[in-house]
Amino acid sequence: MEIIFSKRTSVEEVEEGTNFQPKFDEKGLIPVITIDTEDNQVLMHGYMNEEALKMSIKTKKSHYWSRSRKKIWKKEETSGIFQNITKIQIDDDQDCIILFVKLSGTKASCHVGYKSCFYRELEKKGKGFSTSLVFNENKKVFDPEKVYKGLENPTKL
Amino acid sequence: MEIIFSKRTSVEEVEEGTNFQPKFDEKGLIPVITIDTEDNQVLMHGYMNEEALKMSIKTKKSHYWSRSRKKIWKKEETSGIFQNITKIQIDDDQDCIILFVKLSGTKASCHVGYKSCFYRELEKKGKGFSTSLVFNENKKVFDPEKVYKGLENPTKL
Repeated sequence: MEIIFSKRTSVEEVEEGTNFQPKFDEKGLIPVITIDTEDNQVLMHGYMNEEALKMSIKTKKSHYWSRSRKKIWKKEETSGIFQNITKIQIDDDQDCIILFVKLSGTKASCHVGYKSCFYRELEKKGKGFSTSLVFNENKKVFDPEKVYKGLENPTKL
Repeated sequence: MEIIFSKRTSVEEVEEGTNFQPKFDEKGLIPVITIDTEDNQVLMHGYMNEEALKMSIKTKKSHYWSRSRKKIWKKEETSGIFQNITKIQIDDDQDCIILFVKLSGTKASCHVGYKSCFYRELEKKGKGFSTSLVFNENKKVFDPEKVYKGLENPTKL
């Protein structure tokens, strides 16, 4: 059955209603936070276009829009990392999504090899923070050179 | 002391290094996920410009860029909701930030009155999801009409 998103016609309905009315930005994308349902850790921050969102809703498998490769990217095609969606949350103005996922296969979600993309944090210094990073994951879960052999690195300067 | 972000000159350094080299998009913004340090719940998804990020690092108080009001927005000015930053994480390609915050004052972060902006989720249906939303917070923490009296609603159609 075709999935149709209803039109955004009132702020009240968007904020307090029960109709899913996702807002895509001027590039047709909506930001997505992906969380490991087992330990509540944020795994990654990505984007979906309308098609990727519909495919995710239908199949319960994470689909994203790859901004570097400019195509739909089903999370598992190249990496063997499966994200099975258990819950989809939307925020107040419906312009951001949270996916809760159960990982299977390689239990990691970061192309650099770590479990989470957020494997570094700012070092504390005095009353604030410095601009030096410290690692909060000590060991990679997989070797990206083996898994992504020959594929372009999505990280851009 | 002035905070300076070093230039992004190599993918290896961005991904595996210890220099904080945040990437701002073509609008000068970086997305920010804000998490309650007490229960790991995602409270909100916002944006910072370079100045808001530097002010957050310096003061350990959340500063964002308001896309609707087009100005820096210190989280507490209007709402009495304080976000005290305990940790700042950055992702692999350094184009997204997580703030871990301790809430004080009104223990909520959503302008609609709920604790988290993500107070709704897609209803489960068959093997996937429907496009009907169900609420996962049953009661508002505060009355937005009292707190934001006379201010423009940031939610846009």
